[in-house]
Parts: sequence; structure tokens; C-alpha cells
Amino acid sequence: MNKETEIPTIDDIRKAHQLISEHAHRTPVFSSKQMNEKSGGQIFFKCENFQKVGAFKFRGASNAIFSLSEDEASKGVATHSSGNHAQAVALAAKMKGIPAYIVMPENAPKVKVKAVKNYGAEVTFCESTLEARETTLDQVVERTGATFIHPYDDARIIAGQGTAALELLEDHPDLDVIIAPVGGGGLLSGTALAARSIKPDILVIGAEPKNADDAYRSFKAGELIPVQNPDTIADGLRTSLGKLPFSIITEYVDDIVTVPEESIVEAMRYIWERLNMIIEASCAVPVAAVFDGKVDVKGKKVGIIITGGNVDLDNLPW
Amino acid sequence: MNKETEIPTIDDIRKAHQLISEHAHRTPVFSSKQMNEKSGGQIFFKCENFQKVGAFKFRGASNAIFSLSEDEASKGVATHSSGNHAQAVALAAKMKGIPAYIVMPENAPKVKVKAVKNYGAEVTFCESTLEARETTLDQVVERTGATFIHPYDDARIIAGQGTAALELLEDHPDLDVIIAPVGGGGLLSGTALAARSIKPDILVIGAEPKNADDAYRSFKAGELIPVQNPDTIADGLRTSLGKLPFSIITEYVDDIVTVPEESIVEAMRYIWERLNMIIEASCAVPVAAVFDGKVDVKGKKVGIIITGGNVDLDNLPW
Repeated sequence: MNKETEIPTIDDIRKAHQLISEHAHRTPVFSSKQMNEKSGGQIFFKCENFQKVGAFKFRGASNAIFSLSEDEASKGVATHSSGNHAQAVALAAKMKGIPAYIVMPENAPKVKVKAVKNYGAEVTFCESTLEARETTLDQVVERTGATFIHPYDDARIIAGQGTAALELLEDHPDLDVIIAPVGGGGLLSGTALAARSIKPDILVIGAEPKNADDAYRSFKAGELIPVQNPDTIADGLRTSLGKLPFSIITEYVDDIVTVPEESIVEAMRYIWERLNMIIEASCAVPVAAVFDGKVDVKGKKVGIIITGGNVDLDNLPW
Repeated sequence: MNKETEIPTIDDIRKAHQLISEHAHRTPVFSSKQMNEKSGGQIFFKCENFQKVGAFKFRGASNAIFSLSEDEASKGVATHSSGNHAQAVALAAKMKGIPAYIVMPENAPKVKVKAVKNYGAEVTFCESTLEARETTLDQVVERTGATFIHPYDDARIIAGQGTAALELLEDHPDLDVIIAPVGGGGLLSGTALAARSIKPDILVIGAEPKNADDAYRSFKAGELIPVQNPDTIADGLRTSLGKLPFSIITEYVDDIVTVPEESIVEAMRYIWERLNMIIEASCAVPVAAVFDGKVDVKGKKVGIIITGGNVDLDNLPW
């Protein structure tokens, strides 16, 4: 396949799984009796908050980086991100022993900048606009010859993210429904490809904040409708849906549902309190969709991808 | 054996494990590369914060309750506790289908009272002194004929708590050191019995807040020296060491170390941030002992029992 722009197959996802399995954690699947009683379904959480760098993003980044040719790899990798993808690329590059160049907005949280630098990546700061990020990235790539690792609009990334659903379905092959949050769409499209290939009659649902509902609107309209600076606590889902993920989601996802901010915060706190695990607001979006009755889970076995656990403990939403 | 007052054997712990294994979770063991790099050892966390009721206490309580005779069981069980043991007894009794009578101080956190009531237990309130708790408990036992399930000074409880170390050593048989926090001593004594029976040359260390160092002082003095209303954030460890645990700890534990409050808070936050899991302050005590160099872990394989994750998210210590 053209490794960047073609829709990955289940074989690509299986290959990705083999490739990354010695680097990434096989994360545990948690369930909670209270959660099941409250929802009326049997909910299985695939806990990517316990993944390396604390997020599923490590799966895609390590698949992309470990599948580079030696020639490509020698020049390093580059990306722009202020979030988990930056850390994922930095760590995977460190493991591979190649340089990583990360473009970050100058207002990025210091703790995230520090984490990226700790992994040995070179950080270039830019203004906090998409244009500045892209221009600065182009300059970095020009200067270094590094390979750009897009956070979601890339088949290698999508195949890597799909490995979380692959593992979840290995552990629980009889899921009726699988729900993933949707931002740029890398996780949801990888999840859909994996799940529908393994279990064709599974229902695949994307969950999105109402305040950043571009994937929902794009899905309903049948064309990409980007969103501008959406205001949601689910910071991982502020990104607009990417082109390749959109084409996959259109074909393989059954529905996209949206939830309001207060439901996200409530669901986030519920998981913290009942499952004793730290999840980002983004992961609470599918949980909120269940609690708000946006997805019918009664009597069903439902997988939810818990995407990450990187939060600022000094700024909790309660 | 006299099931309440004699030192349990490894066989008792194995029997406990068989008895509770269909009720309790086999909790996962986590590790963190960052934690290993920071400490210089290989640290394995046995995650009882993911146990039922969010704490290891469920192991002991369910062992005690499921090993009652049918005659004893029919009259129910009773205890006094404002913490995790109350919830553990309430849930295990519910599973066994027998009544639970819990004496709680009238100033117990509402959320804990609610949790106990949700498990169907009958709650009797009393003044917040040990004397009032014991008197009220005696009245409840008198009235109902229920069996008193002591939180730690009971061989069935100790055998149950020892099953966490049993599982940890099944997963990682080559541990050099195992560390557990010590309050009443049920967990530390059960851990010591299990660990030293399975691997006689393992080092067993208890970790205690400096502000509640009765176990440390008792251990050094060779006699029980109780503590009065100690002021520590590690609320699970404010209890004084029990008689039976003390006799076991004297024989089977290699050392008890203490840590200051600020180290406990720092270690707690470290685990929240790096492992993305919610732990109580009590669990942070062994972690703090490692960071403060109170236990030599360099180049060693070290097991730490993470005891529970029930915290008030509105009152975090940072």
C-alpha cells in the first residue's frame, strides 16, 4: 500500500501489532460492577491511560517510526503537537535511536514541553496558530530531512491506533458495540477498521463533545466540515477530523453521537471515583454517551477505548 | 487452628486464596520505566486500588466471611470502621447473602456511610472515640448475635490480606524485597507470612508515617506501644498496631521505616502523574520510603503493595 494515504487493511493492523508489541504495553481491560449496574450493559474499558506516555498515541507513533526504512529513519522524524502525540513521537524515536523534532506552540504547558525534551527530542517553538505550526514544521523538515509523522491523517498511524481494538477483541471477542472518542479521527478510524474486520456485525460508534462536533456534522453531511477553535474541556478532541480518517469513518462507523460539557465532567469524575484510575476528559466522552443514553447498551457487551490519562492535577474540573 | 488468634500458616493463606478467588479480583501488577529510572530498582506495584471496594481490605473481609460456619453466618457479621474495612465487610456479607452491622462514628464522611448503606448494611452511629465504637459494637453483637470481624487483629483477616503478596510472588517469583504500609498491621503481617514462606530470603519491610510511628517504635522496643490520635494524611495508617499482627511482624519482618508527611504527598502525586492511577495517601508511604532512600532498592526487584484508592477528590493534598 501507499503507506501514508491508503486505507489500511486488517493485515496492516496485525502487522502493526507485531511490530509495536515489544515496545508498547498490552494494556489491561477493566470493568466495574457499579458501572454495569448503572448503565445496564457490560462495559469493558481498554485502558490506554496505562499505555506508554499515558496514551494510545504511542501505538500509532511507534508503528509509523518502526516501519520507516533505515534511510528515512536516519534523518529522524518531525511533528507538530502540543499534546500526547508529541510525547509519543519523541519516545518512539528515542527507542528507535533516531532524532525527533517537535514543533510546539509557545504557550504549550511547560510540563508537556519538559516531557518531550526529557525524551531527548529537539523542540522548536512557534506561534499558537495552525498556520505557524505548519510553516515552522515545513522549515524543520526542510532543514533536517526528517519524516513528518502526522498525528492522525496517516495510514501508519491509523493502523497503529487500531491495535488497541484488536487487543480488546482478542480479550473479549463477543463485544456487541465498541465506542471510541473522535478528534482527528485516527483512533476511531483504526478502531472501526479493526473491529469491523474481526467482527463484521459489531456496532462502531464515535463519541464527540457537542462543543466540537465537526466529526458528527461531517458524518451526517457526507463531507468534511472543519471546526474553528472549539471550546471543550476534552482538549484531545479539539482537532478537526482528518481526510483519511473521514473516508474510513464514512464507510465503517455506524454512528457518531455528541455529549455536552457537563456530562463529560460528570463521567470523568465517575471513572476517577469508581475505577480509581486517572483519565483525561477526552476519554470521558464515550462514557458520557453511555450515561446520557446516546448509545443503547442495555444487555449488551460494550467496549470503550480509554484514550489517555495526562491531566493537570492542579486544574481539575471540579 | 484457633481461627482468630493463632498465627496463620502459608496453607491458611493458600486456602484463603482459593476461597476468595471467585469473589475478589486478581489485581494487575504495574511497573513504570520512569519509576525504575528514578529509584534505581525494578519496582512492581500490586494494584489493590483496583480491588473490589477499591482496597485490599476486601481480601481479608471476604476470607473471614466466607469461612464462617453456616450457623455463624446466619446471624450476620459486625464491625466498627469508618474506612475501607466497613465497605469490605458490607460487600462480602452482601455477596454471602447475610446481614452486616457496621458501627461508624457520627462524623464519618457521608460518602463512606452511603457506600456502606448501598451494600445493604445496617449502620449504627456512635461518638467518634474508640471506646464509644467498642461499646456500641458490643451492643450490636449482643442484640444480633453477629460475628465480630476485627479489621486486623484476626487470623482470618491476616490470611486474607496475605493473598495479595501470594499473587504478586506468583507473578514475580524473584522479588528481592517486598514493602507494605503498616497501620493495624493486618496487611504487613499477612504479606510477611506469605512472602517469607514462599521465598525465605526475601526482605520484608514495613513503611509507616513518621507522624504515626507506633509500629516502628513497637518493633524497635519489642513491645506494643500504641499511638494516640496521630496526625497524618495517611488516614488508613492512623490505627495502632494490633496484638496478633505485632507478634507476626516481630518474627517475620526485617525492618520498619518511617517517612515524613511531605514525602508522602510527593510520592502520592508522583504515582498519580506517572502511573495514571488513583492511590490513597497510605499507599504512597512505601513509595516515599523508596524515594527517600529508606529502603535500598538499587539493582533490586521490589514489590510494593498499593493498598487502595479511596480518596476525596474535593480534598486533594496539593
